[in-house]
This record gives sequence, C-alpha cells and structure tokens, in this order.
Amino acid sequence: MQIRRIVSLLLGGLIAGGTALVMRERRRDTNAPALRGWPRVVVVGGGFGGLRVAQKLAGAPADVLLIDRHNYHCFQPLLYQVATAALEPEAIAYPIRRILRGSPNARFRMAAVQRVCLEERKLLTDEGPIDYDYLVLAAGSTTNYFGNQPIAERSFGLKNLDEAVALRNHILECFERASAEPDEARRAALLTFVVAGGGPTGVEFAGALAELIRLVLVHDYPGLDLKEARVLLIEGGPALLAAMAPSLQKEAQRALLQKGVEVRVNAQVKDVDAEAVYLADGTVIRTNTLVWAAGVRATDIAKELGTPLGKGGRVRVEPTLQLADHPEVFVIGDLAYLEDKGGALPMIAPVAIQQGNLVAENIRRLIAGQPLARFSYRDPGKMATVGRNAAVFEYGRLRLRGFLAWVMWLTVHLMQLVGFRNRLVVLVNWAWDYLFFDRAVRLISQR
Amino acid sequence: MQIRRIVSLLLGGLIAGGTALVMRERRRDTNAPALRGWPRVVVVGGGFGGLRVAQKLAGAPADVLLIDRHNYHCFQPLLYQVATAALEPEAIAYPIRRILRGSPNARFRMAAVQRVCLEERKLLTDEGPIDYDYLVLAAGSTTNYFGNQPIAERSFGLKNLDEAVALRNHILECFERASAEPDEARRAALLTFVVAGGGPTGVEFAGALAELIRLVLVHDYPGLDLKEARVLLIEGGPALLAAMAPSLQKEAQRALLQKGVEVRVNAQVKDVDAEAVYLADGTVIRTNTLVWAAGVRATDIAKELGTPLGKGGRVRVEPTLQLADHPEVFVIGDLAYLEDKGGALPMIAPVAIQQGNLVAENIRRLIAGQPLARFSYRDPGKMATVGRNAAVFEYGRLRLRGFLAWVMWLTVHLMQLVGFRNRLVVLVNWAWDYLFFDRAVRLISQR
Repeated sequence: MQIRRIVSLLLGGLIAGGTALVMRERRRDTNAPALRGWPRVVVVGGGFGGLRVAQKLAGAPADVLLIDRHNYHCFQPLLYQVATAALEPEAIAYPIRRILRGSPNARFRMAAVQRVCLEERKLLTDEGPIDYDYLVLAAGSTTNYFGNQPIAERSFGLKNLDEAVALRNHILECFERASAEPDEARRAALLTFVVAGGGPTGVEFAGALAELIRLVLVHDYPGLDLKEARVLLIEGGPALLAAMAPSLQKEAQRALLQKGVEVRVNAQVKDVDAEAVYLADGTVIRTNTLVWAAGVRATDIAKELGTPLGKGGRVRVEPTLQLADHPEVFVIGDLAYLEDKGGALPMIAPVAIQQGNLVAENIRRLIAGQPLARFSYRDPGKMATVGRNAAVFEYGRLRLRGFLAWVMWLTVHLMQLVGFRNRLVVLVNWAWDYLFFDRAVRLISQR
Repeated sequence: MQIRRIVSLLLGGLIAGGTALVMRERRRDTNAPALRGWPRVVVVGGGFGGLRVAQKLAGAPADVLLIDRHNYHCFQPLLYQVATAALEPEAIAYPIRRILRGSPNARFRMAAVQRVCLEERKLLTDEGPIDYDYLVLAAGSTTNYFGNQPIAERSFGLKNLDEAVALRNHILECFERASAEPDEARRAALLTFVVAGGGPTGVEFAGALAELIRLVLVHDYPGLDLKEARVLLIEGGPALLAAMAPSLQKEAQRALLQKGVEVRVNAQVKDVDAEAVYLADGTVIRTNTLVWAAGVRATDIAKELGTPLGKGGRVRVEPTLQLADHPEVFVIGDLAYLEDKGGALPMIAPVAIQQGNLVAENIRRLIAGQPLARFSYRDPGKMATVGRNAAVFEYGRLRLRGFLAWVMWLTVHLMQLVGFRNRLVVLVNWAWDYLFFDRAVRLISQR
C-alpha cells in the first residue's frame, strides 16, 4: 500500500507540474534551419564551455556548428558516482541536439576533429573537412599519466562515461571473483583498491567506494569478510584537496578515515603491474586495481595547433581568449592556459562556463566590429563531498563542513545537471541510496 | 518555480513512504551463510523462472546456488524500450544478489555453464566445476536465425541488454550519418528500418521506433526530411500477433499503420547484405538496418544434455518438469518443452514464473519424500502495446484495445519490474516521455 501511495503522489506531482512545463518545452520545437550568408562559427566540444558558447550565441547573426565525438553532453563532476554504482551513466548524459533545440541558428555534427588548419580556416574530421570563419576550441582535457606507460595501460581513468562504466564493472567483478577465490592473498589483492590523487575526484571517488563496500556490498557478499577490503588514497603533496583551506583539508581527511579509507600523503605511485602498485618509497601494495585521478592535461588537439603551450599542455591565450596570431580562433576551458591574479586558472567547470559566456559575447562583438572584452574569473567557491552527510565548502572566507556543506553540494550539483528528467532520475537515486543505504546500479555490463 | 514544487513534492513523497519501507528493507539484511548438510540445489539462469525457484525455496531445507553469466536479472519484455531510447538499460536490470538477500539459504555465483554432466551430477563452468544434488535448468532462449548465416551476422537481435544498447546506438548513428549524407539514395537507406517478425516483440519495437522518429527525432534533425524515414514490419504469416484474436490482430495493424509503420504480411526475409534486405518474393529493400524478431530457440545447453528435444530445440520434460531419466533434474521456462491442451506452452514470462513456482514446490516435496505435482498452465492473458494510448489485451473472451488496454499494459509491466527504484525510474521516464513527447536516453554510447 505504501508503495502505491508514493507512486500516485509522484504521478500526481509529475502530471500537475508537467502540463505547465509542456508549454515551455513545446515552444522550442520550431527549429528553422540556420540562415546562410552569416559568418560560420564552429565550436569544438560539447562540454561545459562549448555548450555554453553555442547556447549564448542563440539569436546572434551567426551560423553556429557544434562538433563533438559523442552525441551527448556529459556531466563530468558526477562520473565518480557512475563508477561507484550510484548513478546510471544515462543520468548524467544529455543529448546535445536536444539542448540546441532552443537555438535555431545552431546545428550539431557528431565528428572527431583530427587536425586544425589555422591558415586555411579549416578543420579535418573523421566525417570530412569543415570550414569556419570563427573557431572556438573547447575540447577539454584527458588523463595525464606523465609519460608513465604501465600506469597508462593498467590504471582506470575517470574522465568520460566509458571509463566510469569500465571502472564500475571492474570493481564489481573484483568482488565476484573474490567471493569464489580460496587463496587468501589473491582474495586480499582483489579486495584492495588504490586511488592515486587527492584532488576532488580522488577524494570523492575514494569516499564513495568505501561507502559502497561498507554499506552495500557487505550485505551482498555474506560469505566474504569485508573487513579485508581496503581503499587507499595516495596523494603526492602534503595534504588532500590542495586548493582548499587547511581546516577543510583536515576535515576531508578525518571524514575519509572515518569511512575506512587509508590516506597516505607525501606518497607517489611509481609503477603498477598485474599484481601490485609500487610507491616511490618502496612500499608494495598487492592489488588488482589502480584508479588514476592524479592529473589531467589538455587533449592532443593543443599540440596540433603549433602555438605556445602552458602548463599541462594547455594552449596559451590572450585575455580575450583569442590566439595571439589568430584573432578568429578562441580557446576556452581546460584546453586554454590563462593566468589570473598570478596563477593559472584551474581546470574546472566554472572557468569553462564563464569563458564560454565571454567568448559568445566576444564573437558577437567581433561580428559587430566592437572592441573585445577581457576574461576575469569570479570564483563561485570550491566544494567536495566525502560521502553521506559529509562535504566541505569554501567561498572566500566562508568555510562549511558536514551536513550543511553536503546539502549544499547536493543542491548545486542537482541544479547544474542539464535536463529536468536527469535531475529527477538523479534525485530518485540519491534519495533511494540515502534512505536504503543502497547503490542500485551495481550491474556488470558488457562482460 | 514549477520545477521546484515538483521536486519538493517528490522528495516529500519519497521520504514519507521511504521511512516506512526502510523497516521492510532493513529486516532482510541479516544474511547468514547457508547451512551445510542440506541437499544442494543448483539453479542455472537468473531470468523469470530461475529467480522464482530460488526465491520460493527460501526457508526450505536446501542449500540453493543460483548461477548466471550476468550479475543482474533483466526484464526482457521492456528491452525494445531500451533499443528505442525510452529507457536506460539500468532501469530494467536488477542485481541478483540484492534479490536473494531475502533468502538466507540462497547464494549467487556469476559463471557461464559450459557443460552439464548428468551422470556425475556436476556442472562445468568458466569458473570451475559445481556439484549438485538437484538441478534446475532455466537458461532461457536465444535468437533463432533458422541457420541463415548472413542474417545471423548482419541483423540486430533483441534478446539481452547488450543487444538492445547496440541497436539503440546503431539507430541513432544512422540518423547522425544521414544528416551528413548528401547522396539521396544512401540517405534513404540509412533512414529505412526493416523489422522481421510480427510477434509482440516486432510489433512493440516497430511502433516504438516509428514514434521515436515522428515525435522526437523529427525535432532533433530539422535539416532532414523525416518523411523519407521508413519503418517496415515483415511478417511471414497471414497476420500480426498470431496468438491473439483476429479482431485484435487487425487493431494492432491499424494502429501501426496510423503511426506510419508499413506492415507486410505473408512476406519472408530471405537474405541481407550491407546494402539491402531481400524478401522471398523478390522485393529488394535498400536499408542499413535489419532487426530480427522472427524467432527464438532454446539456448545451446539444451543440445548438450543429449536428451530428446521438442520444437525450437527445447528440452522435453515430464509434466512434473523433470527429465524422464533424471528425476533430480528440472527444466523450466523457454528451455523446456511441454504440451498443454494439445499445443506446446509458449516461450513467455508467465509460463516460466508458474513453472518456477511448481519446481520450488516439487523440490520441497522430493526432499520430504512426497509425490510430485504436475504442471498446469493458467493463462493470465496476452497483451502487446503499439505506442502512445494504443495496446491490445486478451483474456479468455475479454478483449480490450486502445487507451484502456494501454493503461493496463503500463500497470502490469510496472508492477512486474523487480525493485522499487527501477519502477520509479521507469515511471519517471514514461511520464516524461508521455508529457513531453520525448525519449531522453537517445545517447550513442561506446562509439
């Protein structure tokens, strides 16, 4: 009976609010083909930055073409929840064509860029050449293995949906194999998970993995002693969450320890093979799993350009976000290198979004023959969550921790997700997991 | 504001009902390891039938081991909705270990059975040998290509999650490629979809695909003339839905025609290559897509047994569902061949579920030394949906069509899904799609 009451409540709410929303959604459906004769703006990358450029150019006298190798936008900040069986991949992905329905002058093409010919103002893609008048490169970043070939080959990354699903499948397979493994040492290795990198991704993933094991899998595997299971977080620097205040760094570390994560700072992962991870200080950790969250770098398109690069292989840009010698080319987000108040801008979503806004504005100004605006970053604050009821948040001198910071983290991430359906699905999952100490998506797909 | 009101309504409902449910869910968490000394019942297959046996043996004096090659139960009747971007695969899959938490004497092992050694009462699996005292084979069915190699290689099946996701990716890729294809004939082939088989799967898939194209993709591809797009449903017999009453067959055909599906009865797909599908009457249909829903057969384990087989390669069983020469072995569901009132029992979920119930009962009786019960099928009625507001339902002499049958179809499928979270996610998707004429999961994964 209880179930039926909830279902009818839900259905009631959906229908009530839904009909009102229909109007709003329907209005966007008239999607006239883009007009010709306008300058052609090509945007490479459907992440936070590229998407923002295309959306903000709605109504501008420009023919906008957005290119991405995937047909969806992926909400990267929640990839770690896909990897820990909390969310289905579809909940954090959204079709780009759907997003662009609101922009009649924007089109989409699914293609992978192979080369940028700056002189000819042309892109070479796996779907043929594409000419542009203005180009916005927003192709983002990829995992940085710092040239370590064994780590590149044997570790799991967390930079896109396929990687997140592969990691989820691997973690669950480790438990399946452990449950049938009579050898104690091999079983212990299967149940040991090493996470390299104590930034937000590493911290959030390690906390979520520890909770998956202690709150959920412990009931799935009554035959396994999950006290054997270990999650180790290895950070090269002296503290976790290097960008945050020391009090919050300590809070994050305390919360992780409480959840059963072993944290090692000032430690480097040097090598990995089929049996173990090797630290720089000689420590050998027997394990079948290394998750690499220790660095990102610009995608390879940066090198192709032949223009000066900054740290992390990022493309150096002018304060207007243009290339110095090619004012018709803009580079934004993780792919761009720009200093602000002395330091390089971080490779995070808020930078990409704000730069996307500015580039859309600057392209409008270029078309209108007006002088361009310079980029200035407004820090919206930093946050990271460690698990149930535990997060840290910093904005200027404001510092929050614990339940309040956690609710804030949930709210901000829910609101930033693209698409109301996705927000609803994520909300259902989060509420479910919170109430029932569950992770519903613990499926091993594509075995 | 409307969105926030819905969100709070939802959250309110979830928390209200959720706390009550917590008690129910928590109670199951004490999962003691199975006791020794009891006879060992091995169940092969975590589909409708196998799962039911394991669940119904809860509390019996038996040590139950369920084996499946996947770690999840898949709700096959909704696979066509995964293939048409209406549902995420995770919404119709549920972790088997979670289901078995309610059965302290049941365990799970992820393994693929390679051979059954009836004489030694032993299974050979990719994870090593497994002994049994009683064996229940519920390994289901696979696509039947009737020995046609080109069709087996080039067509898309709809029998498991991986196939459904592969088909979804292919359909969406066809539209992406068509949007960039200047050649008219090639574009037309990309936008032509041939479905072979007019049973429930073919009918439901064809209807859902037509709606995906006419209601959703038409807005995604303003540059494509989707009047060019064709969905053809090819049925070898004289009518769709052979098992249903003629009036409902006509209704299904009428509803499909109205949605723009071209239906051809008395037509056979004979061959397929990279460019076209060839019918037996000489018709050539230029297309890049053949979906094969024209037949299923028992999985290969049936042949391995060396016992007599019935139609569709199914294993002949006694009315008690035992093998004639091996009373300790039961075969159920799609894998079993049994006649009832003159005809073979159909390969559908209700048969598997009812047989699962009976086998659990018969194993209890065997253990207790009591005589066994014979299987008798109670037909719960047949149904199929064609799309929005359109379905057919038949129960005895009762015949329903249109909206009422459709609501019934929705309700029955929602209630049959395993797991409350999955029901909620499916409900959210259905309500969303219905209100907004949308299909949110139109993502091309694993490109």
